[in-house]
Amino acid sequence: MTISVCFYDASRNPQIRLIFDKNSAMIPSQEDIKKAAKRVKPYVHQTPVLTSRLVNEKVGADVFFKCENFQRMGAFKMRGAVNAILQLSDDKRAKGVITHSSGNFAQALALASATLNTKAYVVMPENAPDVKVNAVRSYGAEVIMSKSGVMDRENVCDEMKDKTGATFLHPSNDINVILGQGTAAYELINETNDLDAIIAPVGGGGLLAGTSLATHYLLPESETIGGEPFGADDAYLSLKMGKIQPSIKPNTIADGLKTQLGDVNFPIIRKFVSNIIRVEEVEIIEAMRFIWERMKIVIEPSSAVAVAALFRNHNKFHKKRIGIIISGGNVDVDQLPF
Amino acid sequence: MTISVCFYDASRNPQIRLIFDKNSAMIPSQEDIKKAAKRVKPYVHQTPVLTSRLVNEKVGADVFFKCENFQRMGAFKMRGAVNAILQLSDDKRAKGVITHSSGNFAQALALASATLNTKAYVVMPENAPDVKVNAVRSYGAEVIMSKSGVMDRENVCDEMKDKTGATFLHPSNDINVILGQGTAAYELINETNDLDAIIAPVGGGGLLAGTSLATHYLLPESETIGGEPFGADDAYLSLKMGKIQPSIKPNTIADGLKTQLGDVNFPIIRKFVSNIIRVEEVEIIEAMRFIWERMKIVIEPSSAVAVAALFRNHNKFHKKRIGIIISGGNVDVDQLPF
Repeated sequence: MTISVCFYDASRNPQIRLIFDKNSAMIPSQEDIKKAAKRVKPYVHQTPVLTSRLVNEKVGADVFFKCENFQRMGAFKMRGAVNAILQLSDDKRAKGVITHSSGNFAQALALASATLNTKAYVVMPENAPDVKVNAVRSYGAEVIMSKSGVMDRENVCDEMKDKTGATFLHPSNDINVILGQGTAAYELINETNDLDAIIAPVGGGGLLAGTSLATHYLLPESETIGGEPFGADDAYLSLKMGKIQPSIKPNTIADGLKTQLGDVNFPIIRKFVSNIIRVEEVEIIEAMRFIWERMKIVIEPSSAVAVAALFRNHNKFHKKRIGIIISGGNVDVDQLPF
Repeated sequence: MTISVCFYDASRNPQIRLIFDKNSAMIPSQEDIKKAAKRVKPYVHQTPVLTSRLVNEKVGADVFFKCENFQRMGAFKMRGAVNAILQLSDDKRAKGVITHSSGNFAQALALASATLNTKAYVVMPENAPDVKVNAVRSYGAEVIMSKSGVMDRENVCDEMKDKTGATFLHPSNDINVILGQGTAAYELINETNDLDAIIAPVGGGGLLAGTSLATHYLLPESETIGGEPFGADDAYLSLKMGKIQPSIKPNTIADGLKTQLGDVNFPIIRKFVSNIIRVEEVEIIEAMRFIWERMKIVIEPSSAVAVAALFRNHNKFHKKRIGIIISGGNVDVDQLPF
């Protein structure tokens, strides 16, 4: 049960109308997701929705792929970064933004900042591959190296934040990042209508939470489903236990999904996600291969997790209309699993 | 200099108006290419035209990729096969079609025949990979095995043709196949307008000849350029010598381009293609990798040849509007060069 109130969080989200539910979780409104879609539109690609006769035959359903692998910098993360920066006051934007990430969000924040004339600081672990560090730098961000432990990078991040006055933006556990990520599903739904379910991969939880918000408000009768590797199934366990479970030694080829759910996105996921389907590593690789070879698009292992969830449970989806969020296409072709 | 005449070749091309040039080459008219585009439209995908900010920056030009890797069965060859079958009389269609190919045309003829309710016979060499043989069979074609020599497969093909009454369709040296392949460039030009040049890979010559016809009639001021591996440069040499040169021991990763020009397509290429750019193997692999990693689409080595030709000669294309025919995306991900 939810009680709709006008909530004004002046420090972070001046324009967000929030709904408090009984667990005091912050649930954005339908208006918020609409506004986010309008806000990010000039700065992100409206990515294509692809269909495949072959996939439809294999699954016995109508499947619509929202291809965020064609997004700027190659992943949906661009949406959240843009939306979060655009929600900052002029004063805050002038001081820049900071995050710690070695993945797609590092590049997303760097490119979003360059696009929006904001300074970006990115704390990256010293063992991050050169190619990733260089990609972030190539967008004009300042990279600060830290040791690879979580505490180490958080400490370096805090120091840098104090020194520069930059605003910290979490890659997934931030309401504006979540709303930005939800704009992919928002576009997908507007283009396809009447989907019975949307499947998105879950790692840190930003994409799945955002997807579930868009689905809940635009298609109230439809389901949002997460795809997660067995080797990193903290979201599955968290949903089952009703509280966030730690991600202990996650081990999966889908390295974008090794991250931990957070206290901002978990309440949304708990409220609006009906189910999380876990998949084996071999299923992830097979799904990735299938999409590369048959649909001729390059998707990263994290995206293949959502496809593998569809393939694994295809009986459940028989004769339905299913949306899949293809989260990104950033792969190093020297390190392929096939 | 050309003299326009109405030419009626009842045996093969009842509806084609041909123009004879002084070398007696058969040059289809603008009307023919328009009709082909209309004819194939219900049976092929109108594939997307993609652009990439990154490619444009790299080349210093506006580049438009016509993505036939998203075509049915994964390559432009579907267009030629459909157009050629649709030009047969009912009587001939009832007896079926036959070709010899171990490449994309084998699958194209099989799928086009299934689509158009025609029987397809495909002669394949006994050393063809199982995966290719099975793909052709999966579309319902009858596969006839032959020894791998050119004479062997032609003999088997002739025998089968006599036995069944099927019409032989050459993968590239057939005027209706050429016109069908030209419909990719036709669509590209209609969608983009005002291209300064279109680059297509050249192997057997069907795609390049068809592309040059579309360009000549729709953009008379523009160039058609071929891309060809140094290791299989018979088209380059043929154009230079003014007559068809044999393709002797071609050696390239772009296995779709190892085939030989023919006497139907060479006169068209000679007349309408301004230039063939040869590329090194390492350039093909680098171009393929670049497109996979940056544009997130799977292209086959033959397609990468056209991209490599663009990259190699980017000074020539500075500030121009360039179309590229991405010919296909059929690759075995177990056999990648990276």
